[in-house]
Amino acid sequence: MPGADIQLRSIKGFHIGGTVREVSGFEPKSRSIVPGEPPEVVDMNGDHALGQMYASYYQQTNPQFSLPLLLWHGGGLTGVCWEDTPDGRPGWLDHFLRAGFDIVVSDAFERGRASCPAYPQMLPEAPEYRSLNAIWHHFRLGPKGSYPGAHHGAAIREKAYPNQQFPVESLEQFAKQFVPRWTDTDQQAIQAYGRLLEKMGPSVIVGHSQGAYYALVCAQKYPELVRTVIAIEPPAVPSKIKISPDTSQNYLFLWGDYIHGVTNHWERYLLASKKYSEALQSMGHGAEFIELPDRGILGNSHMSIMDKNSDQIAELIRSWLMKRVHDIRCSR
Amino acid sequence: MPGADIQLRSIKGFHIGGTVREVSGFEPKSRSIVPGEPPEVVDMNGDHALGQMYASYYQQTNPQFSLPLLLWHGGGLTGVCWEDTPDGRPGWLDHFLRAGFDIVVSDAFERGRASCPAYPQMLPEAPEYRSLNAIWHHFRLGPKGSYPGAHHGAAIREKAYPNQQFPVESLEQFAKQFVPRWTDTDQQAIQAYGRLLEKMGPSVIVGHSQGAYYALVCAQKYPELVRTVIAIEPPAVPSKIKISPDTSQNYLFLWGDYIHGVTNHWERYLLASKKYSEALQSMGHGAEFIELPDRGILGNSHMSIMDKNSDQIAELIRSWLMKRVHDIRCSR
Repeated sequence: MPGADIQLRSIKGFHIGGTVREVSGFEPKSRSIVPGEPPEVVDMNGDHALGQMYASYYQQTNPQFSLPLLLWHGGGLTGVCWEDTPDGRPGWLDHFLRAGFDIVVSDAFERGRASCPAYPQMLPEAPEYRSLNAIWHHFRLGPKGSYPGAHHGAAIREKAYPNQQFPVESLEQFAKQFVPRWTDTDQQAIQAYGRLLEKMGPSVIVGHSQGAYYALVCAQKYPELVRTVIAIEPPAVPSKIKISPDTSQNYLFLWGDYIHGVTNHWERYLLASKKYSEALQSMGHGAEFIELPDRGILGNSHMSIMDKNSDQIAELIRSWLMKRVHDIRCSR
Repeated sequence: MPGADIQLRSIKGFHIGGTVREVSGFEPKSRSIVPGEPPEVVDMNGDHALGQMYASYYQQTNPQFSLPLLLWHGGGLTGVCWEDTPDGRPGWLDHFLRAGFDIVVSDAFERGRASCPAYPQMLPEAPEYRSLNAIWHHFRLGPKGSYPGAHHGAAIREKAYPNQQFPVESLEQFAKQFVPRWTDTDQQAIQAYGRLLEKMGPSVIVGHSQGAYYALVCAQKYPELVRTVIAIEPPAVPSKIKISPDTSQNYLFLWGDYIHGVTNHWERYLLASKKYSEALQSMGHGAEFIELPDRGILGNSHMSIMDKNSDQIAELIRSWLMKRVHDIRCSR
């Protein structure tokens, strides 16, 4: 399906949301900023930007779809998760650009190019850094206690779940995608995403993990702007549904493998999102809940967006959008 | 000169350089990672990636030039400085893509999408956060003591140097581009840039500020790979020149306004890079040293890459490359 070339009217990165405020509490420190120059005392107190997020916007010369695709990454990652796979294949940015979508790839508040706030001066707590051991288990790469250690060599494949689609041989390359993340900044992140939605207008959000949760929250807050949500393994759902039926939206929930009877917390998250999908449907929204193994697609980790069959998953989403979202094709 | 569309064979983000190593010293901490879930103790010790940088690579369908342009940002910033201007105009990424160059925009080690290492667990010191006050003065926006404070309104123009080309009205938007930076990690940053150069092959580097210094260092370390350096206001130069004359390179040094008799430290940096340019020339390299005011281009701050006349500066660089770099046009 992907075409030979990508023809764009514009590529534009920008920051959005947040504000400048006065920050204090930095201790004066003597540093040499320029090689060869003597150290000088740098006072870092003063006005700083806080709360912004980063986005890059790819506009097609001839878009095939009327709504842009907003790709929202999960916790600990940045927009790079849509641009690259650990084994170096093109990511979903490439796939959906060639399919003819206008696309926004973003870094949420406090991740990557959005900047990393100082603590305790800008945010009270220190951020979380996720170790490869934690990634291995939390992202469902292999059974409990099977993390093979760094510099593992080819034997790593034997440690993973059978049929594992994640390119585990490239685990160390995947580790390079991780950035610090706070665990108590949902409100700030959602606020900046709101500014992004206001700028973009009616959109389709493809959210992964934490990004899928943010997409579900924003779909409630901005029903006119969030027309469709593709929620890939959201670990949480909004506590209430309060959307009026006259702003009908479309939802697709996608879940991978190694969940039922294997990883209890993921099973709990899956069941919560299934219940949420059913509630959306009962309120008149279009909502579909898909477990990939039920479609015969086996072996997907939490990272189906970059698993070896990531193109297959992307195509599943594209054809679902074409079939289910009435007004998605360009009428131009 | 810029054309109507950008036609690309490929857009690809990736991380390069660095390695995975064991990190200790994180104290166990109880956190709730998922909304609604009870807090759990997260042990962050273990294997983490460190030393990597991030790059996005834009490959033209029909490149007009035989060497890719590598855009290396300055201290405190990321690759976004090439993608956006504070007042929302397209940045140099857009300009040079439309001119037909293959382009790499990158985030150096410990900046933006390259990740922000934990301290003291991964890097011994805390990073520097630059306040707007410091930015205002260090980037030559206005005279000593003239920083107008946040939420300044239109009156900010009166505080700036006369004829200031920097879009000072959008100073707060510029603040959003800043990320923490360390001041003692030159070696790690240069090492990762080396991996990038090895991947890209012979290249032209456009470096701004600290990125220009890194480009000059890499030009010595990798003379076969760094064919041309456009050094925009490097605050430092390598202490020795040791390149053999049989790998002749091209250098362009570009400096802005408000330096001579105005900002002493910038005058010192300028004179050091002028001396370096002359030394390169005496060794058989092509080296040109340009002060924009000498060409009648007035009012450029340290941020000529995003000043209001940034397109004019980009065109100056493009035509210099066409004239001076013998083999830069595509023979395809």
